[in-house]
Amino acid sequence: MASSDVLDASEDYRSAIVDLLGVLAYGELMASQRLASDAALAPTIEDQVQLSTMAAAEFRHFVRLRDRLADMGVDPAAAMEPFRAPLEAFHEMTAPSDWLEGLVKAYVGDGIGIDFYREIASSLDPDTRDLVLDVCEDLGQSAFVVDRVRAAIAEDPRLEGRLALWARRLVGEALSQAQHVAAEREALTALLVGDVGAQGAGMDLTAIGAMLSRLTDAHARRMRALGLSS
Amino acid sequence: MASSDVLDASEDYRSAIVDLLGVLAYGELMASQRLASDAALAPTIEDQVQLSTMAAAEFRHFVRLRDRLADMGVDPAAAMEPFRAPLEAFHEMTAPSDWLEGLVKAYVGDGIGIDFYREIASSLDPDTRDLVLDVCEDLGQSAFVVDRVRAAIAEDPRLEGRLALWARRLVGEALSQAQHVAAEREALTALLVGDVGAQGAGMDLTAIGAMLSRLTDAHARRMRALGLSS
Repeated sequence: MASSDVLDASEDYRSAIVDLLGVLAYGELMASQRLASDAALAPTIEDQVQLSTMAAAEFRHFVRLRDRLADMGVDPAAAMEPFRAPLEAFHEMTAPSDWLEGLVKAYVGDGIGIDFYREIASSLDPDTRDLVLDVCEDLGQSAFVVDRVRAAIAEDPRLEGRLALWARRLVGEALSQAQHVAAEREALTALLVGDVGAQGAGMDLTAIGAMLSRLTDAHARRMRALGLSS
Repeated sequence: MASSDVLDASEDYRSAIVDLLGVLAYGELMASQRLASDAALAPTIEDQVQLSTMAAAEFRHFVRLRDRLADMGVDPAAAMEPFRAPLEAFHEMTAPSDWLEGLVKAYVGDGIGIDFYREIASSLDPDTRDLVLDVCEDLGQSAFVVDRVRAAIAEDPRLEGRLALWARRLVGEALSQAQHVAAEREALTALLVGDVGAQGAGMDLTAIGAMLSRLTDAHARRMRALGLSS
């Protein structure tokens, strides 16, 4: 490999990391805003507090990602800007009409996103990988969401169909926006399927198929945990 | 004073403190939810981050108040519940229709509330007083709000009239809800005007008049800082 290739590879890798931290940061910022507004839909003060606590945790994740971008000498707002339109479109298309839809969105929608970023993490240098895995930790509140959704369905079984449809819509919208991002952000996409990752070559078609099947399995597990068919 | 009077006085004081911490806690919880939702109205990512940062600070204040209630052996949700209806009514009546209205609400509306709680703080035992003053600290972001509102008015002077009217409506709604609370929560009201405070006798009419005039002056100062007539 000529030295200019090394330079290019490392520049491509840096662009990809800036994109990855930017999309994650803006995603966490929006998630914290949306969870905090959904908290106002909660039936009890305890439930409001639970959702607001999740929002505060997402905001702390945002701060860590923003600070990492700043440490890299990157303007965090500039790194987030390319992902503003797709993430806002996702949230506009999936504004929950009630408390339960908000919970399903927080669990199923954020769950699939988190699984995806964890998959990407294997292509990263150790420092970035640790940060990505940290901000993708389960906030320990999944149990709360599962409990609330199952209890609501037990009380009114007709909810199951509506919430299952809603979860499918969430995944559809998420995939649609992810496709836009993948098409527009070459460096980020190359991290997954190209050869800019810290581990050398990215995934081939077989590896991508295996990853999609892991994501689908995990999604189906979350749907079952909620008592919904996927 | 008979010993039963001492007991009654200390029980009244305890009820008043539970009310005070309850209304403050629910106020901070709602403020954090509303600031986070208003952040979605912000024109730039930097502005979104500023509002979300304010929301996170309000949530940290909420956590401190909730933990103090729990330390006192009180169920925090039960302590907050009596203030849910008036605070939600206030926020419903004053939902900002745009970003600037949200900023004016955060600065003018929260400002008058904070001044009021600071006034009450002088009737409290040192531990409670320190906590109340801590959660009423200026989050240092007033400068940000003043800057954004003044810049918007400089660009479009017609905004001044609309935002001044909006600020008057905020204060009117706040006073109206405060009157409901004062009428319904005797112990809390007695902290201010009765003799249950840690410092003995509460305010007489002259003292209340002086307090109202301090609150009005501070409000007028904030309005002038924004470039609005009060």
